[in-house]
Amino acid sequence: MQDFTFQNETKLVFGKDKEKEVGREVAPFSKSALLVYGSDRIKRTGLYDTVVQSLEKENISHMDLSGVQPNPRLSLVYEGIDRVRENDIGFILAIGGGSPIDTAKAIAVGVPYDGDVWELFEGEPVKEAMPTGCVLTYPAAGSEASVGSVITREEGWYKRPLGDVLMRPRFAILNPELTLSVPKDLTAIGVADIMSHLMERYFTRVRNTDLTDELIEGTLRTVIRNTDKVMADPEDIDARAEIMLASTYAHNDFFTVGRLGDWASHNIEHELSGIYDIPHGAGLSIVMPAWLSYVYKEDLFRFVDFAREVFGVESNSKSDDEIARQGIKKLKAFYNEIGLPTRLEQVDIDSSRFEEMAIKCTESGPQGNFKKLQKEDVVEILKLAL
Amino acid sequence: MQDFTFQNETKLVFGKDKEKEVGREVAPFSKSALLVYGSDRIKRTGLYDTVVQSLEKENISHMDLSGVQPNPRLSLVYEGIDRVRENDIGFILAIGGGSPIDTAKAIAVGVPYDGDVWELFEGEPVKEAMPTGCVLTYPAAGSEASVGSVITREEGWYKRPLGDVLMRPRFAILNPELTLSVPKDLTAIGVADIMSHLMERYFTRVRNTDLTDELIEGTLRTVIRNTDKVMADPEDIDARAEIMLASTYAHNDFFTVGRLGDWASHNIEHELSGIYDIPHGAGLSIVMPAWLSYVYKEDLFRFVDFAREVFGVESNSKSDDEIARQGIKKLKAFYNEIGLPTRLEQVDIDSSRFEEMAIKCTESGPQGNFKKLQKEDVVEILKLAL
Repeated sequence: MQDFTFQNETKLVFGKDKEKEVGREVAPFSKSALLVYGSDRIKRTGLYDTVVQSLEKENISHMDLSGVQPNPRLSLVYEGIDRVRENDIGFILAIGGGSPIDTAKAIAVGVPYDGDVWELFEGEPVKEAMPTGCVLTYPAAGSEASVGSVITREEGWYKRPLGDVLMRPRFAILNPELTLSVPKDLTAIGVADIMSHLMERYFTRVRNTDLTDELIEGTLRTVIRNTDKVMADPEDIDARAEIMLASTYAHNDFFTVGRLGDWASHNIEHELSGIYDIPHGAGLSIVMPAWLSYVYKEDLFRFVDFAREVFGVESNSKSDDEIARQGIKKLKAFYNEIGLPTRLEQVDIDSSRFEEMAIKCTESGPQGNFKKLQKEDVVEILKLAL
Repeated sequence: MQDFTFQNETKLVFGKDKEKEVGREVAPFSKSALLVYGSDRIKRTGLYDTVVQSLEKENISHMDLSGVQPNPRLSLVYEGIDRVRENDIGFILAIGGGSPIDTAKAIAVGVPYDGDVWELFEGEPVKEAMPTGCVLTYPAAGSEASVGSVITREEGWYKRPLGDVLMRPRFAILNPELTLSVPKDLTAIGVADIMSHLMERYFTRVRNTDLTDELIEGTLRTVIRNTDKVMADPEDIDARAEIMLASTYAHNDFFTVGRLGDWASHNIEHELSGIYDIPHGAGLSIVMPAWLSYVYKEDLFRFVDFAREVFGVESNSKSDDEIARQGIKKLKAFYNEIGLPTRLEQVDIDSSRFEEMAIKCTESGPQGNFKKLQKEDVVEILKLAL
């Protein structure tokens, strides 16, 4: 195990109708909130009104910032920063999935920053952040209790992550009933994101990580089992609840302690969705198996464990190499079963921009920890994903 | 899953030499600290000096409150409250295991309370708490990141728990090297406490707790595996590290979410160690199996899972009842293997005060959730433990 410091102050408010309590959660922080969300869908479902009523009950005024897109854009972050500054707003409340939450977090660090917020995504240190909170409607990104935000700059289509402990939301309202209407394809895309967050923590070269190995393996099994249930019956509220909780635990760093993860596959995917604007989760279900196949020989031990513990691959008379490959094969089969792509051609992407993506991905240096990836490695992984 | 609210703000600072950073962790809270510890042992090992030097580097003054005993006493809590009030101290720092930490927490809620602190242990609500922190030397109670404190009032030998989110320490310094010198018998006693915290959460009547089931089962397996390693080689720092992390995770409520645990066995044990002053962990290794045997038929499902997932009991051609009983048997065997008692006669306790303990234990009403225990039930469980 590595030495570590860990703290997560995000308050989780989980259960039926909890969105009605959002005003009470915002009240200790401010009397004014910026509501950040995507489409008008939350108005049609009544969620928007519920939130506004709850805020009004606490005499909290609000302004809106709508129009957040998947792979959320920098231009809207700028707009949000201006709105907060001009109206002296004290709290940023996201309603939706990872995209509004990431947008809210980027605004939260941008407002007190004396410069272009994009500089923070390019490496300037975060020193201050406004308080944020969220009402989650889509379990996937885990942004509801994580340190991170991923924003796409339209100029050059750069998609970049930023993470700092100051950026964890102060609270996350998690009502599984709000996820009942998420269609199967989007559910699957979210699951790919959740599983990636777990696998990116799992595949570490650090040894003696016994407890967190067990916790990650158990969470992966839980996600797989409950995804199968939701696919069979999208109204299965108990399975939806498990997936919602797992999405939060997968990325809130409870399982990160003592490990050094590998985020190369996430970063390679960011180039894909940055340029082609495909859903992040679909990009991950393609890149992750390719990355696994490319690196598994570096440390067979982990991959043998993964195959056995997560997918129940039996070891009888198989070589470690065979066991490891069978684990990767089973992951792909699961993704295909739930309707996710595992090859680039399934989302109409060819090799024409591989070189460009590999250059952008490794601009700041080699990627990953499990194996340090140079530009050429990234091209090879993309080729494996074709 | 049940609805829940969860928040844990305790900062974990884990690794080699981290006790040298304690001053930096106290500094944001106060310029004066009360050091709460047990014997002079920490002076002999040099830990006391390390802590004091680290505080002095940050210009933090300190006063001592030493002499904390296992099953920590109310009289010393009173003394600590007086010392803090008289000297206007702003922070309480525990050095040691659960007993100093529980004492520190009791002082922390006692100082701002306008009455006898014992009233809080009798049910008055906690409204305020001073900040506390700890340098852990003994993984067992999990008090380093929990909401709870357990104090024994000498008058009538009442041992009572108190818990409130305000009571979580602000930080916990966890250096596994400090646990290398814990002898095998005390290590085993600590393990019984850790495993009880996990089992008390595990045995719930709430259904659809898939993720937290997995997390608890995985943590129990980790504790069992790594205890075996420490018993074989007490210098195994990696195994010591796993047990230290597990002690914190077992009781910091990461695995509590959505469940309704059962603390009856803990409360029955409190009567034992309250009256007979045996180590809490040794009391638990006796009471827990008796409690399991008494209640398992109430909800076989849980006990079958426990036997299979934690102890690998195979189900081939066995009835559920047999599988469940085999799980309990394996738990007892593990306790005996690591030198823990599983029967009262092993610690020279006979049935003469069963009635008295059962009355005290159920004074505030029936105990437990898995099965509601009346006075008679408590007597029966104690009989099973003879």
